[in-house]
Amino acid sequence: MSIINNINKLFDHRIRLGIMSVLMVNEYADFNTLKELLDATDGNLASHTKALEKAEYIKIEKQFINRKPNTRYSATKLGQAEFKKHIEALEKLIKNT
Amino acid sequence: MSIINNINKLFDHRIRLGIMSVLMVNEYADFNTLKELLDATDGNLASHTKALEKAEYIKIEKQFINRKPNTRYSATKLGQAEFKKHIEALEKLIKNT
Repeated sequence: MSIINNINKLFDHRIRLGIMSVLMVNEYADFNTLKELLDATDGNLASHTKALEKAEYIKIEKQFINRKPNTRYSATKLGQAEFKKHIEALEKLIKNT
Repeated sequence: MSIINNINKLFDHRIRLGIMSVLMVNEYADFNTLKELLDATDGNLASHTKALEKAEYIKIEKQFINRKPNTRYSATKLGQAEFKKHIEALEKLIKNT
């Protein structure tokens, strides 16, 4: 049992921490909103959303708004639970510092 | 100015978070202690200590104890300051979740 046991590898990136944080407080966020909030490039953001989607931590919905394609993201129940666990592990780890 | 602005890329790994946490509360830690605490392999731990040393966040000292080589690590002033900033940024980010 290591002191970093509950720190989730899948959240080992600031962009992923950022995506999850945004989706914990907002039911949905679209690609461009996340891009701006996190100051990420298209490619960078896409690769991290894909990793989180593969783990089923977030859901991707594609729709059309005024005939323009729009991609929006939301956190799954699993993603919310795992992120909470991660945050608690971080808090525990840094409480000792 | 992004919401993850002060989250330091160099700490984007649980092993690095772990190393810094240990070195914030202990003046020194040797390689085997870190290895056990973080449940890391030799190669994994070595690569992360090297990255933190390159950034001058930690210092490596090699010495002999009872004729056995011993490698110990300590956090630099810079490393302590940067880690504190990182933790504050994390706390700010997750306070919204």
